[in-house]
Amino acid sequence: MAQELQTYLSEIRDNLEKGIIPFWMRNGIDKEFGGYLTSFDENGKPLPDTDKYIVTQTRMIWGFSILYKKYRSPELLAAAKQGVDFFIRHFWDNELGGWYWKVNRQGTLLDDGKVVYGQTFAIYALSEYTLASGDQLGLEYAEKTFDLLQKYCADTARGGYYENLERDWSLSAPGFAAGDLKSLDIHMHTMEAFTTLYACSHKEIHRRKLVEIIELLVDKMMDKEAGCGYNQFDVNFNRKPAINIRRTWNAERETGQVMDGPTDSTSYGHNVEFVWLLNRAMETLGDNSGKYDALCIKLVDHCLKYGFDAQRGGVYRDGPHEGEPLVRDKEWWQNCEVLIGFLDAYEHYGDQRYLDAFKKTWEFDSKYMINHEVGEWKQLLSEDGQPLTVNIGNPWKGIYHTGRAMLECTERLERLSR
Amino acid sequence: MAQELQTYLSEIRDNLEKGIIPFWMRNGIDKEFGGYLTSFDENGKPLPDTDKYIVTQTRMIWGFSILYKKYRSPELLAAAKQGVDFFIRHFWDNELGGWYWKVNRQGTLLDDGKVVYGQTFAIYALSEYTLASGDQLGLEYAEKTFDLLQKYCADTARGGYYENLERDWSLSAPGFAAGDLKSLDIHMHTMEAFTTLYACSHKEIHRRKLVEIIELLVDKMMDKEAGCGYNQFDVNFNRKPAINIRRTWNAERETGQVMDGPTDSTSYGHNVEFVWLLNRAMETLGDNSGKYDALCIKLVDHCLKYGFDAQRGGVYRDGPHEGEPLVRDKEWWQNCEVLIGFLDAYEHYGDQRYLDAFKKTWEFDSKYMINHEVGEWKQLLSEDGQPLTVNIGNPWKGIYHTGRAMLECTERLERLSR
Repeated sequence: MAQELQTYLSEIRDNLEKGIIPFWMRNGIDKEFGGYLTSFDENGKPLPDTDKYIVTQTRMIWGFSILYKKYRSPELLAAAKQGVDFFIRHFWDNELGGWYWKVNRQGTLLDDGKVVYGQTFAIYALSEYTLASGDQLGLEYAEKTFDLLQKYCADTARGGYYENLERDWSLSAPGFAAGDLKSLDIHMHTMEAFTTLYACSHKEIHRRKLVEIIELLVDKMMDKEAGCGYNQFDVNFNRKPAINIRRTWNAERETGQVMDGPTDSTSYGHNVEFVWLLNRAMETLGDNSGKYDALCIKLVDHCLKYGFDAQRGGVYRDGPHEGEPLVRDKEWWQNCEVLIGFLDAYEHYGDQRYLDAFKKTWEFDSKYMINHEVGEWKQLLSEDGQPLTVNIGNPWKGIYHTGRAMLECTERLERLSR
Repeated sequence: MAQELQTYLSEIRDNLEKGIIPFWMRNGIDKEFGGYLTSFDENGKPLPDTDKYIVTQTRMIWGFSILYKKYRSPELLAAAKQGVDFFIRHFWDNELGGWYWKVNRQGTLLDDGKVVYGQTFAIYALSEYTLASGDQLGLEYAEKTFDLLQKYCADTARGGYYENLERDWSLSAPGFAAGDLKSLDIHMHTMEAFTTLYACSHKEIHRRKLVEIIELLVDKMMDKEAGCGYNQFDVNFNRKPAINIRRTWNAERETGQVMDGPTDSTSYGHNVEFVWLLNRAMETLGDNSGKYDALCIKLVDHCLKYGFDAQRGGVYRDGPHEGEPLVRDKEWWQNCEVLIGFLDAYEHYGDQRYLDAFKKTWEFDSKYMINHEVGEWKQLLSEDGQPLTVNIGNPWKGIYHTGRAMLECTERLERLSR
């Protein structure tokens, strides 16, 4: 088996080192204005959309930082650092604190919303930047963001964090602007962010808030019977069929089936991403009690039962808590995250089915999803691999899912193939 | 009736203006070291205990401030200001932020615990000081304290605030140190503090956190069937029979029956205090929906049914949720707070029984509880008014309950007797 895993390792490392890193180093850095460009057509040529979103800008900072931690090439560090400079200069609200949602290419403010999803990615990216570079500026802003999140975004009556806030940190309106709901999405990414923040700062308060967000996710946001995450809730954590929310990928997606909702759906990719992020969080906390293993196994099994294409490999986009998928398209990010999640589950729980799911998904990804000439991944395919959206980058797609998947899988395969 | 109320008004105003204010102006200010002295024997002579506690120091600041707001005498302002100076100089943790629990007379640190109860009284006092004086230093520190409370003391998994923390803002141990429980006491006083903070700052975030603490208290801490507050909870708001907690009055009380617990008890005085503090909070929010009226009426009625001495006037100390009191002693603070609460309920809900309860309690207080020669109140009596503890001040007893009751009742009686 070690030999077989070596083959996967080599293919995956190649995609990272010869595809993803060179593509983004060559195309992703805005040499004129700083920060990052992320919209590219199927041939990797720049598209006219050059607006800069907090989510993608921070994910690019994160990606170049963690890659610098691994490869120690000064170009990677410089790519991260110039992104941090642009980000602090143009996204930070000097008056009221926190990060804006969107600026144009030059850095002129376009959307001053304070979205929790964006704040958490700032924490994630800036902490990783400090971990990689030693430059304390990243952690300084990450901690400031953490403090503002605690002050303005936590719900001290019911626990958890609100979703969308305005520039002045008042809650956004109910409904589409989501001032009245809580989502698995932002809470999962808060866990992800606090994991890296704590790994960087070693502060007790960051540890405590990481433990709290884990407890909240497990106790209130998981459908433990079905074995999947529930997507949206009212502020009291009563389940609400999911709607599309302002300033989210699903509300802004250019192509692919839009579920008008409200829908009782779950995301297979998200659930398996949650598993490996939770395992990473527990490892960072030094907690090897295994107390969430049963839940994690249920989540992966739910994906294998309902969301995984056992014939062709890869996972479908969305489905109900039980039963056949609602949207059978295959999207890049879910098919990145499950690679890590399946391997992670195999490493933790030793079930051969998880390794098999990883292999079949990688084979599908490698054959259909990756644009090997350009080096990066396409965006959206039909279930049998036919291209639906083949752009390489968009305002939401950068180095984060693909680079992270290849990096995390490389590290796991190195261990497993020894 | 107006004539009768005029008589009460005159007696109560006399106790304030000729008793309480002169007593504390003459004896309460530590002219040697700054801050306040609060331990006095039955004749109002100083006792050897000169340690300074956050709770009493802030309550004295609060008292002199609000009295200055009413009477505009420069001596009252000076009395408040020197207390603020001592408090900031000796209680503020310059390194880690927040307020210590106890210093000695000179200001040397004795207990560096960061207790939420103490932090909230700092917010209450310093906001009132700014409201009274216009000196922004008070609000500046009140806001800093609020921010630290949000960062370190809120429970983002379950809502609400933790109880006891150590100097470094880590949670205290479980059990006596109460790191594992939540109490009505600190949440009620947080509501009280945020009411004054919001009245002073008019900031949206202070308003939002005030609304949240009200919702939490009403939804999770009230026994709505019995019509009384439940005292202690685990972190998930499951009810726990109450124990005595480190750094609380009941754990440190010098005399009077100690309930070793765990006991399913409720405090009649606390419940009725909650009613008028909640009405004040709603008024400050500009919310006249009356949505908590039914609850407030139940709380007052519970006190009248079980905790009120219909024969002699006054309220007993503690009792079960239903049935006869457990501790029939009458303590000063409950018999201050119910004066305000009964009058407040009469003003809001118009029920004559509430006015009668006020009258009988005032008659009991005036006859037995007040030391008219000294001008201040005794501490603890038997149910029939026999003295149990007749000291005028102790490390927990200052101008707050007595001065506030006389002031709040004066204002209500002025309106009612017009």
